[in-house]
Amino acid sequence: MKIISGGITAPMGFQAASAEARIKYEGRKDMAMIMSTAPCRAAGVYTTNKVKAAPVLWDKEITDNSPNVKAVVINSGIANACTGQEGMEICRDIAEAAGSALHAMPSEILVCSTGVIGMQIPLERMKAGIGALVPALSDSEEAGLQAARAIMTTDTKPKQIAVELSLSGRKVTIGAMCKGSGMIAPNMCTMLAFVTTDAAMEKSLLQKALKDVVEDTFNMVSVDGDTSTNDTLLLLANGEAENPEITEENEEYHAFCNALYYICEQLARQIAADGEGATKLLTVKVKNAASKEAAKTMARSIARSSLVKAAMYGSDANWGRILCAMGYAGVPFDPEKAEVGIESEAGSLLLYNGAPVPDIDEDYATKILKAEEVIVNADCHDGEAGATAWGCDLTYDYVKINADYRS
Amino acid sequence: MKIISGGITAPMGFQAASAEARIKYEGRKDMAMIMSTAPCRAAGVYTTNKVKAAPVLWDKEITDNSPNVKAVVINSGIANACTGQEGMEICRDIAEAAGSALHAMPSEILVCSTGVIGMQIPLERMKAGIGALVPALSDSEEAGLQAARAIMTTDTKPKQIAVELSLSGRKVTIGAMCKGSGMIAPNMCTMLAFVTTDAAMEKSLLQKALKDVVEDTFNMVSVDGDTSTNDTLLLLANGEAENPEITEENEEYHAFCNALYYICEQLARQIAADGEGATKLLTVKVKNAASKEAAKTMARSIARSSLVKAAMYGSDANWGRILCAMGYAGVPFDPEKAEVGIESEAGSLLLYNGAPVPDIDEDYATKILKAEEVIVNADCHDGEAGATAWGCDLTYDYVKINADYRS
Repeated sequence: MKIISGGITAPMGFQAASAEARIKYEGRKDMAMIMSTAPCRAAGVYTTNKVKAAPVLWDKEITDNSPNVKAVVINSGIANACTGQEGMEICRDIAEAAGSALHAMPSEILVCSTGVIGMQIPLERMKAGIGALVPALSDSEEAGLQAARAIMTTDTKPKQIAVELSLSGRKVTIGAMCKGSGMIAPNMCTMLAFVTTDAAMEKSLLQKALKDVVEDTFNMVSVDGDTSTNDTLLLLANGEAENPEITEENEEYHAFCNALYYICEQLARQIAADGEGATKLLTVKVKNAASKEAAKTMARSIARSSLVKAAMYGSDANWGRILCAMGYAGVPFDPEKAEVGIESEAGSLLLYNGAPVPDIDEDYATKILKAEEVIVNADCHDGEAGATAWGCDLTYDYVKINADYRS
Repeated sequence: MKIISGGITAPMGFQAASAEARIKYEGRKDMAMIMSTAPCRAAGVYTTNKVKAAPVLWDKEITDNSPNVKAVVINSGIANACTGQEGMEICRDIAEAAGSALHAMPSEILVCSTGVIGMQIPLERMKAGIGALVPALSDSEEAGLQAARAIMTTDTKPKQIAVELSLSGRKVTIGAMCKGSGMIAPNMCTMLAFVTTDAAMEKSLLQKALKDVVEDTFNMVSVDGDTSTNDTLLLLANGEAENPEITEENEEYHAFCNALYYICEQLARQIAADGEGATKLLTVKVKNAASKEAAKTMARSIARSSLVKAAMYGSDANWGRILCAMGYAGVPFDPEKAEVGIESEAGSLLLYNGAPVPDIDEDYATKILKAEEVIVNADCHDGEAGATAWGCDLTYDYVKINADYRS
């Protein structure tokens, strides 16, 4: 597997476009389209929130039941969440407009929205946006990057990645982009992530691959613990690489899953590092826990703790808060066996090993904690399972971004 | 039931004292003692964190097994958490020193600590503190108030309350004090709460009353969602009111429980309102949920949401975040049936009723949200169960308090 430049337009047959549609923002691009020249198989993973935005319901129906997908239409600014029947009708209208422009059925058009909850999308502007997007479609790297910018809300950076791998002797490419800064940002919802590939794989296996990979990647990110109404991860595969279609969990399937895992892990890290107000990426590694579930729960509990996050912001080696967050995670854990340490490019330091480590060099600890990525190492000495979670520090700017008025 | 002035020294036979022992702080009182002239029956409820501070283990043994309790010794500054065997020995030494000074057995002395995790308590200073506390014991209201001050960490206000009621024709008094500002504050842990009463009641019923009441009061408070290693709620009953001993769940038992509920509810509100950095009290009332458990889970989910809390700080009527927090609580909930509104002494306003309420008067909403106590009303129209949770807003000062260095 090789990392290459670009994002969603890197795989063969995928094009992208972006446009200024003034859905809610002014003076910036706020719509994007992903289109495949050949029909795609699509898989999707969605928010577990009981409050599901209209596009989530629309897309799930399609990834569950439509054999083919042609394109994805995305807007930022308004989330189309808590919008009732009208919101669902707007999804259909968008899909019809895009389908008509692309000579596809509405059931072949996925729709994603991110932004303010509870506002209706101005349909005419969306339609005008689609009119501008279709002729602008391009397979250039720049078109992919501009699409990654157009879907941003409070994100400060576009997020994309692409890799190449070989399956049965054929070159296969996977590209991706995503956005997300708070699980919900200032009434902006959502993590949206899009993965494109020219691999040929059976639809049910695509869905399985996506579901397995998301558990250890996107689902291990916490910016503020608030699970959005719009979270969506889509995988589109158009088969243009002409590898023999993957129809069982063979070596090629696992090679594809590994590459997909890498893509999703890197995007998860990018989301955490660009968390609202964040000044640093927090990577939490739990090792030797009693079970995988226990490891994941503890890793997320640490990454989510407001007190750990505030200590990270203050570059304070406050191991008591880490241990405390492991203790209230509600899974098997014996503090007397545990070790807790910190690590970064500046070095590593053990802070607790069943008892406080005496005479910690606080200056050295501060130096480690001042890095752009800080790793918390928590070894439970209680089994063989491990997990990694990603988060960020809790800063004045997080409060500022989220206390400021919606407008 | 009548609210009276005072706190833990209000019931007959209870005395308190406070002292400057320099456990960690300088220039302020940091030790307190509660003592009963007559032997008490004691009940306790403790943290569910797997990391339990030494005093939690010590006290649970006593409230489970000792027939009588004479006194409680409390210090602030150091939590005696994550301190291993040495921490347990310090508890025993403190209990022996206090027992010896009060002519009681070590098994009749409860010990509570709150403060920094992972530091050992300087035993000689504690012993000197006990030496100062015992001769200073007094049943005056002032002694109770000073004890409530001595146990504070990042709290900005002492917290106490007392009520009188009549049981079988006898006047019975219940008094209480507590501290707690973060579930853990800057490496300071804990909610500690102490309830004294001169009521006569069987030990097993005292424990049942306390356990039942804590579920809907203290357990419904969230400042930051971090469950401390030291959380402790103790109830001491010395029988000095000479009411006929309550030995079954009769009318007197329920009257006592109602008064205890009021005491714990008021202290829970005081803790939430004095949450680290808080500028306002957030009361969340969930009504007509499918089950009591669903109502409690949703109420806590709203009160705990960083995004709701930040919106409260910004006085932003951001109902989408409230609905979202109900949706990810993981309990039965139908957003299409729900109503969400806000209320304060400045008025009340419906924001969502299965769909966004059109044309919300945002100025009026802001006025409501600028009050010292804001109530979020969430009606599920999905059953008959209700619950109330308390929290506070998320402010720059929360980040400041918790990012600042431990020293």
